[in-house]
Order: sequence, then C-alpha cells, then structure tokens
Amino acid sequence: MVYKKVAIFGVGLVGGSIGLALKERKLTEEVIGVSRRLETLKKARALKLIDSYTLDPKEAFSGADLIVLAAPPAAVIGLLKTGLDFLEGRYIITDACSTKKKIVSAADDFLPETIFFVGGHPIAGSEKSGPEAATADLFEDRVTILTPTSKTDPAALETVRKLWENLGSRVFLLSPSEHDRILAATSHVPHLLAVIATLLLKRSPFAEKREFVGTGFRDVSRTAAGEPSVWKEVFLTNADNIRKDLTSLERLLAEWKEALERGDGDYIQNVLEEASGFRKTLFSDEEGKE
Amino acid sequence: MVYKKVAIFGVGLVGGSIGLALKERKLTEEVIGVSRRLETLKKARALKLIDSYTLDPKEAFSGADLIVLAAPPAAVIGLLKTGLDFLEGRYIITDACSTKKKIVSAADDFLPETIFFVGGHPIAGSEKSGPEAATADLFEDRVTILTPTSKTDPAALETVRKLWENLGSRVFLLSPSEHDRILAATSHVPHLLAVIATLLLKRSPFAEKREFVGTGFRDVSRTAAGEPSVWKEVFLTNADNIRKDLTSLERLLAEWKEALERGDGDYIQNVLEEASGFRKTLFSDEEGKE
Repeated sequence: MVYKKVAIFGVGLVGGSIGLALKERKLTEEVIGVSRRLETLKKARALKLIDSYTLDPKEAFSGADLIVLAAPPAAVIGLLKTGLDFLEGRYIITDACSTKKKIVSAADDFLPETIFFVGGHPIAGSEKSGPEAATADLFEDRVTILTPTSKTDPAALETVRKLWENLGSRVFLLSPSEHDRILAATSHVPHLLAVIATLLLKRSPFAEKREFVGTGFRDVSRTAAGEPSVWKEVFLTNADNIRKDLTSLERLLAEWKEALERGDGDYIQNVLEEASGFRKTLFSDEEGKE
Repeated sequence: MVYKKVAIFGVGLVGGSIGLALKERKLTEEVIGVSRRLETLKKARALKLIDSYTLDPKEAFSGADLIVLAAPPAAVIGLLKTGLDFLEGRYIITDACSTKKKIVSAADDFLPETIFFVGGHPIAGSEKSGPEAATADLFEDRVTILTPTSKTDPAALETVRKLWENLGSRVFLLSPSEHDRILAATSHVPHLLAVIATLLLKRSPFAEKREFVGTGFRDVSRTAAGEPSVWKEVFLTNADNIRKDLTSLERLLAEWKEALERGDGDYIQNVLEEASGFRKTLFSDEEGKE
C-alpha cells in the first residue's frame, strides 16, 4: 500500500475511476469520497469506487496522504478559494480538471504554504459521465499532463507523478498556459465542432431523418453527447485560447466557401489531402483497433 | 441466382463490396468489373470481388442484367454523358454516388430511352478506400436511398430496390434534390468539420504533440482520413447545399464566440444541452456497441 487515506472531491467518471483504480491496484488502505451531492456519493459507494463518504471536505481531507480534486472547474476553484483553512499540517493536493491556468492560479493565490498543490489533467474521458461510467482502467496507457509552476514543491510533484504512473498513465509536464493552448486545439475546439455538427442537423428540417445518418456523423458528433455542465466550464475557463482558434477556423471556413463558390477542385483536393495525410499519420498506430 | 451478369463500373470500396456481396450471396452467375485503372481491376480480381474485368465499358456492359456505376461522381457523369450509345437493347443501370442531383440530371439528359436509370446511394462508407477495404457485409443493416424522378421506369426501380434489399440494405426513396439537401447536413458538412478540426491542429504549433491528442479528437477527425478525390467530388457536386449550411454554421460560430467573450455560461450550457440531448436520442440504440 502506498497510501493510508486518499480523499477524492467529486466522484463521477474521473474521480470514481481514480478511486476504483486505487482500490483494485491495492494502492491505498482507504478511499474517502466527498461531494456536494449525497446521491452521487451513495452511488459511488454502492459501486465500490470509494470506501466511505462525507459531505464535509474537512472530514474527508483531514489526515489524507493525498487529496485529489476531480470535480468540475467551478467547484474546484470554489473550494481552492476557501484556502482550505480548515486543514492543519502539511498536505499534497492535485486536481484532474481539463483546463489548468485558472485552477493553478487559484491554488497559487489562495492556498497556504503548507498545502502543496500540483495541477493535473488525465487525458482520458468519454461522452459518458457519472459514477456509473467509472472504470479501473480509464487511465491505463493514457497520458496525464502535470502543470508545475515555479511555486510547485518538487517532492509533491514526484508524489503526484507517482500517483498517475501507478494508475497506468504516462506523465508529461507542461506549463499551465501551454497546456491550455494545446488542449484548445486537440480537444476543446474539436468538441465544439462536434456540438456544431449535431446542432446543425438538429435545427435543420431533417432532424427526424435518423435513417439517413451514417457512421461518419456518428463519429464526428460522438463527443457532443458529453456532460454539458462539465464542458461549459471547460469553455469558460479556456475562453481566450478557444476564441483565438475560432478565428482561424472562421478563416478556413470562409476560404472553403469561396472555393465552393468558384468550383475550385484544386483547392478542395489540396486541403482534403493535407487533412487526410495528417490524420493517417496521427493514428497510424491504431489502425485495426478501431 | 437472380442475375446472369452484373457489370460494376469502379471496383473500389463500394463497387468491390457490391461485387463480393453478390458473389457470396450467390445472387449472380458473373460479376464483371470495369475501371479506367488496370491495377485496381487486377487487385479486385485477386481479392475475388469480381470474376473478370475489362477496361472497355462496352464489353463490360453488353448483355448485363444490371449495370452499377460505383466510381466517383466525375467519372460517372463523364460516362453518362457518352449516352452509352455503344449499347444496343434495353438496360437497367444504377449508381452509388454520394450526391444525386447532378448524376440523375446527367442520366436524364444524356441516356437514350432504352436505358433505364435509377439513382442510388448506399449510406455505407468508411475512411478506408480501395478494393482492399471491400467487405461482403458493407451494406448489411445499412440504408440505401434511391432517387427516382418522373422519368424513372417503375419496373427498373423495383429491380434496383431488390438489388439493395438482397445486399441487406433498407431502401428509402427521396427526390434527388431532397437527398442532396439532407446529406449535406447529415454527411457532407460533418465531414468538412472533421477536416477542419484536423487542419486546425495540423497547422498549429502543436501538430507534433501526438501524445496530447485524446479519444475525442480521434472520433471527431476520423472521417477526415477519407479518400480526398472522392470527397472533393462530393463537395463540388453538392456545393450549393453545403454553402447554405456553412452560412448557418458561421452564424452559430459567431454566436458562440460572442458568448465566450462575455462569459455567458447560460448560453453555453443551453447549447451544449441541446446538442447532448439530441445526440443521445439519435444513437440511443447503439449504446454499448460503441
């Protein structure tokens, strides 16, 4: 056992999977869940993702070797802003939010020096959500990004790195702002495009024509089924980077429309080849698995 | 056996799969392939998708009970424009192109009265292409749209309907222009969004950051790997409908950017909920399979 007590704030897909993975891998004697919703805690307990639960962060966190904040950004930021001044002694705390700059700033600004914070983001999700969706292998062979700053304690960073490695993740380090810029392009804007593809169909006169929707649409739109409250906060906490990318996107769309207008097959062919070639390189290692 | 001889023009993913499915289901005594590329024909023959091949449409089509045009739109339109005046007698001919208005117009305009044309589109594809990607079950439990017009011969329509039903498809009828309007929203614009998601990453400073690309991006971008020459023609032959949808898309994007700028969580939450709810309804029957 690596830990005596791990406290997890938020026991949905990510928090629940962390709890389950810790327990299944016998990494901790105890996992205690804490949330603002009793119902979620009860479900997580029934699914054995956690050993016990409480609605009180002080009770959950006190004496924990490690505190993991796995709630959506607003709840995490709200908690960090309390300064966790109910805790006495030294603590190591990390999070699992999909954006990092606002979270890490809140930690830097509000936590006392005895609480060592390390920002984290496991790139492992699903369009499913809630404790029911948790699995023990969610982080296996996935990547987790940690976002240390000049304020980060090196020993705490190593402890958090070990956590994710123990759950099967490969760990990379980025600055919080670098993380948010990259993830806007690799995750947040693609999610928005899935949402937009879905909305265009839904608001068209053909929304009921389910029979004419093929596998292409199914793939493009899949992530749009994701939990709105979670994604809302991703968009709000990474708005500047996403807006910049949307400006590039608007330029691309305008070019494309002009090419369609003048029937420019060469332009269209070139762009499709550029995308197709890159997509094949990106996922060449996964052919056959899909 | 339903047919003595079926001729297939274009023996890639779709044409090859039609040949293989006809042969495996013992629906025809002979499948002959015709293409402008000898290499593709040789591959299709080696893979037993067709029994024989020729580079000469006259030789391929003569005496066929059924002619299927499964090449990209430009090649199909080019062939239809010849009027197939090398054929003598009565023939039934159909196609498998992803857009219908330009194809059906070419058939109506150029084919003699003895050649009965029925436009068709099996909604069954893949980001893979070529004879190597062909499978006998490509059309099973899929939908095929036929697009008869006032000029369509009812008996020919029934023959073509039977073809697709025999290959395992459910058949629906639409007008060519209705087909193209619907498919712009369910397939062509979503494909463009996949291409754009891929391009934005490729042209960003993070194109090499393969390790930070998760399953969301993989799904959204999947169809972008599709064959550029085929998709180019889809865009060119359905340009008007696609441009109209892109105008709606631009409005949505502008709204979204403004909402991000003013930090409007309510707008974002509402739109995400609208998309998420609709996406879940659309594919509720496929949960667990994915």
